[in-house]
Amino acid sequence: MSGTSASGIEAFQAQLRATLEPALVSWLARTRADASQGGEHLEAIRAAVVSLVERGGKRVRAALVALGYSGSSGAPLDDALEATLGAQIAMELLQAYLLIHDDWIDQDDVRRGGPTAHVALAAAYGTKALGDACAVLAGDYASSLAQRAFLECHVPPERLVVAARAFAKMQERVVLGQGMDVLAVLRQEPLGERAAVEAVHEYKTASYTVTGPLVVGAALAGAEDSLLEQLSAFGRLAGIAFQLRDDLLGTFGDAAVTGKEALSDLRHGKRTALLAELPQSGISKELCMRIVRGEANDQELATARRALETSGAKDRVEARIQVLVKEAWNIGRELPWNGTSRDLLREVLVSLTDRTR
Amino acid sequence: MSGTSASGIEAFQAQLRATLEPALVSWLARTRADASQGGEHLEAIRAAVVSLVERGGKRVRAALVALGYSGSSGAPLDDALEATLGAQIAMELLQAYLLIHDDWIDQDDVRRGGPTAHVALAAAYGTKALGDACAVLAGDYASSLAQRAFLECHVPPERLVVAARAFAKMQERVVLGQGMDVLAVLRQEPLGERAAVEAVHEYKTASYTVTGPLVVGAALAGAEDSLLEQLSAFGRLAGIAFQLRDDLLGTFGDAAVTGKEALSDLRHGKRTALLAELPQSGISKELCMRIVRGEANDQELATARRALETSGAKDRVEARIQVLVKEAWNIGRELPWNGTSRDLLREVLVSLTDRTR
Repeated sequence: MSGTSASGIEAFQAQLRATLEPALVSWLARTRADASQGGEHLEAIRAAVVSLVERGGKRVRAALVALGYSGSSGAPLDDALEATLGAQIAMELLQAYLLIHDDWIDQDDVRRGGPTAHVALAAAYGTKALGDACAVLAGDYASSLAQRAFLECHVPPERLVVAARAFAKMQERVVLGQGMDVLAVLRQEPLGERAAVEAVHEYKTASYTVTGPLVVGAALAGAEDSLLEQLSAFGRLAGIAFQLRDDLLGTFGDAAVTGKEALSDLRHGKRTALLAELPQSGISKELCMRIVRGEANDQELATARRALETSGAKDRVEARIQVLVKEAWNIGRELPWNGTSRDLLREVLVSLTDRTR
Repeated sequence: MSGTSASGIEAFQAQLRATLEPALVSWLARTRADASQGGEHLEAIRAAVVSLVERGGKRVRAALVALGYSGSSGAPLDDALEATLGAQIAMELLQAYLLIHDDWIDQDDVRRGGPTAHVALAAAYGTKALGDACAVLAGDYASSLAQRAFLECHVPPERLVVAARAFAKMQERVVLGQGMDVLAVLRQEPLGERAAVEAVHEYKTASYTVTGPLVVGAALAGAEDSLLEQLSAFGRLAGIAFQLRDDLLGTFGDAAVTGKEALSDLRHGKRTALLAELPQSGISKELCMRIVRGEANDQELATARRALETSGAKDRVEARIQVLVKEAWNIGRELPWNGTSRDLLREVLVSLTDRTR
C-alpha cells in the first residue's frame, strides 16, 4: 500500500468533480426563487449556505457515496455518479449544515478560506445577535435542502428509503458526536483514555466522513445488510484514522500546507488524541491544565509540542493510525466488490490517512 | 359551521392520543441506548428533547397527518392511525426541533409549562455558553430523530418517498419563515402590510401546522398531485387563520386560559397582525416605535391595547379570520373525501381558528 500511486483516485475525483460541481451550482441556483418569495432579506441566509457549499474542497464524502454504489452494484463509475447525484449533493449540504452550527458553537471566524456563516450574517444584518440567530437558521435551512436533494436520487424507491434511513442515522451519530466534543470540557481530569478519544472520533467524524457515505451509497445500490455491516466496520476504522491524522496535522502540520496555524489545536485545548497523551508527556500538571483550559501562551504551547514529540506521543498516534489502517484494510480487502472498486477504496483509505493537509 | 358540536373531533383526538402517547414514550425510550454510548453527559441533551415532546399538548399536527391519510385513502381512522404513526411521531419531533431553536433565538425561558431547552441545559451543564450550544445540538438531534421516525411509516416505499419529499419541503418553508420573523426587526418602518404579515404566517406557521401535515398524510395514502394541491391551498388559508387567532389571543386572550401573559406579544414587539395595525390605531408614532423596539412600559402597552380595540383593529383581524375560514372551507367542502373525513376536517378548521387558548 503506497500513498504515491494515486492515478486511479485522481481520475475518479476529477470525473466526480466534473459532474458534481456544475450540478451543485445549478441545484443551489434553483433554491433562489423559493427563498426570495420570503423577502429580499432571506437571501443572505441562502447565500451563506451556497457560498460555503461552493467553496468546498475535496468532496470526499460525495466520492465515497458513488464508490459505495459502484462497488456494491458492480455498475460503472459513470452510472454510479449519475444514480447517486442527489445523495452527493445532500452530503455536501449536510456538511455545510454541520459546519455552520459547529463554527458558531466554536465561535470560529474562518472556514474554507472565507468568513464563517455567523460572521458573514452578522456583517449582512448589522448585529452579532442577528448573525448568530440566522447562522443557526442557515444550518437548519441547509439541513432541509439536504433532505430534499437526497430524495432526488434516481434509484428504486425501496432502496431510496433504506438509504434515507442510513442518512438519518448518520446525522444522529454526528450530532451526538458534536455534543460529546462540546461537553468534553466538563471532565474534571484534563483528558480521557484512547477509547474515549476514539469514541468521539467515531461519532463526530467517522460517522459522516466514511461510514455514512459508504453505507448510503451501498444502500442506494440495494446492498444486503451484511455488506452494509462490513462497510460500516471499515468506515469506523478508516474514519477514526482520518481524524487521528487530522489531530497530528493540527499540531505538527506545516501551516503553509494545511492552511491552519500549527499550534491552534493545542491553543484551543481541542480534545485530540495528542491532548490525551499530554499528562504522560513530562510537562507539569499545571501547564497541562492551562492548555486544557485554553489559557497557555505561545511559549508554553511550543514547550508542550516539543514534549509530545520527545515523549513519543506523536509516534504513538502515528503507530495507531497504521494499526487502524491495517485493520480497516483487513475488512476492505474482503469486500465482495470487483477489483477496480476495491483498488479505489484502498486509494481513498490511503488518501484519508496519509496526507499532509 | 359551529364551534360547539365537536363530538367527532373529540373522539378522534382521544383515539389518536391513545395510540400516539404510548408510542412516543416507547419510541423515545429506544433512543436512550444510542445516546448513552456517547457518554453520560449526552443524556441531558436527549432528555431535553424527550421532555419537550412528552409534555406536548394538542397533537394537532399528528391528527392532521392521520386525517390527511384517512380522507385521501378512504381507510378507516384506525388504519390511518396505524399506517401514519411514524409520521405522527416525526411531526412531534420536528416541532420540538423547531421550538428548541426558536426559543433559543427568542431567549424565552418557559415552554409548555417547563423550562426551555437552553435554560434546562444551562442548568445541567453549569454555563450559559454550554446551554446555548447544546440547545442548538438538541434541536439538531430532534431533527435527525424526526427523519428516522418518518421513514418507519408502514406504507409502500414509493409513497413514503413522495411524503418524505413533502416533509423536507415543509421544513424548508418553516425555517425560511423563522428567518422572515427574526429579520422583521430590520424594517425601517415599524410594520408591514397585511400581505407581508400573512406571508410570514404562511411560511412560519401554516407550512408545518396545517399544509405540511395534511399533504404528508395524503402523500402517504398515495394521493394524486391535484389532491395534494387542494390540501395545500386549504392548509395555507386555515394555517394563516390559525396564526391570526394566535395573534388575537396573544394580546386580548385571557391569561388564565392561554397560560401566557396577555400583553406579552406587544411587550416583545412581536410581528403580529395587530402590530401591523398599530400605526393606524391613533397612538403616537413615538409610542408605536417604542413598542416595535420592545421598549414600552406596562402603562403604554395597556394604552396601545385599548387603541387596538377602539380603532377597530381587533375587529378587522377577527373579520379577516372569518374570511380565511370561509375561503378555506370553500376548498375543503370540494375535497373528494367521504363525509366523515370532511366533517372532521371542518371541525379541525373550527378548533384551529375559533378557540380561547
